[in-house]
Amino acid sequence: MRMAELSAESGVPVATIKYYLREGLLPPGERTSPNQARYDREHVRRLKLVRALLDVGGLSIARVREVLDGIDEHDDIHKVLGTTQRALQLSRIAVDEPTREWAMALLAKVGALRGWELRPDNPVVDSAVGTLGAFAALGRTELVERLAGYAELADQVAALDLAGIRGLPERETVVEAAVVGTVLGDALFAALRRLAQEHASATSWPASPS
Amino acid sequence: MRMAELSAESGVPVATIKYYLREGLLPPGERTSPNQARYDREHVRRLKLVRALLDVGGLSIARVREVLDGIDEHDDIHKVLGTTQRALQLSRIAVDEPTREWAMALLAKVGALRGWELRPDNPVVDSAVGTLGAFAALGRTELVERLAGYAELADQVAALDLAGIRGLPERETVVEAAVVGTVLGDALFAALRRLAQEHASATSWPASPS
Repeated sequence: MRMAELSAESGVPVATIKYYLREGLLPPGERTSPNQARYDREHVRRLKLVRALLDVGGLSIARVREVLDGIDEHDDIHKVLGTTQRALQLSRIAVDEPTREWAMALLAKVGALRGWELRPDNPVVDSAVGTLGAFAALGRTELVERLAGYAELADQVAALDLAGIRGLPERETVVEAAVVGTVLGDALFAALRRLAQEHASATSWPASPS
Repeated sequence: MRMAELSAESGVPVATIKYYLREGLLPPGERTSPNQARYDREHVRRLKLVRALLDVGGLSIARVREVLDGIDEHDDIHKVLGTTQRALQLSRIAVDEPTREWAMALLAKVGALRGWELRPDNPVVDSAVGTLGAFAALGRTELVERLAGYAELADQVAALDLAGIRGLPERETVVEAAVVGTVLGDALFAALRRLAQEHASATSWPASPS
């Protein structure tokens, strides 16, 4: 298909597609004349992936390129997922040193129950510790009692995440699906959780008649 | 305590505290002389809440004021939670009309299983529909089979969320705790889910030796 059709098919404006081509987020089309090129289904798929990483994942152009390079260079799945996870914006919260140590000890205890590897250089560990610290700073230390419960549910959610991609046929599809799942998965689960919270909250505290 | 102590206690710079006072995010202290005021523990607590809403929740100053007004005006808990949920940044993804209808029908089916109320004017419903549509646009329609599973786990997470605040003594604490839980809760669960995914992914696809 030509550039105009690629734009219509993907919903991405021509100028934006040209920008992605220049930035190396999209492989060049097959040149058919000095100023025309042909694009295929792979380009449509790649464009949608780029938009998901930019719009939903909030990744920078440079980070998107890094994730795509991992997919294209046939890094192993675990490595590409690691790059994606690090590229995603995680809440980073500054907490003082005693709070950080308290939170790290708590996370280590819960992680040990679940068999998680908590490498200190992992930014996800940093994010979890910062968030736990922020809860503590707001006096919500009773969270401690429920953290193991959240971790157990996180394992169940992750099992569903992995089940969804395990059966896919090709390596490339698996990696792409895992990337998409990581990026869109948080947004989807956050929305479901709020719907569930609204339901539970309406049941616990019915709105006063007005 | 004086302004300097409030700053030291909360970790928020004096200039920033003055800005929050001007913006009405923090109630004025008790005036002790024409250019001095006294602040108390409530100010420290409120400052930490403001920081959580701004830094972790990514709310604008105007949205923070709206949430705080709800807390201070003794709106019912369900209403304050609704304001908070609407104020939080949700992923909004544009999808075409047939995809939107497909996603809405799917969500309605799963929501009915869980007893959720899905009002069309609820931005959370919009966010869920948009994210489902984005999955579909990327060819991940096999997600359909797992959506009911995610919804069930979301109910379990929400039950833990509510359990954490139900036992708290005062109305104000309950509302504050609910707000904090909604804002920090997503960040915490997203981090736990990634740790669980890493664990599951390392088990499924061990990294090649390097």
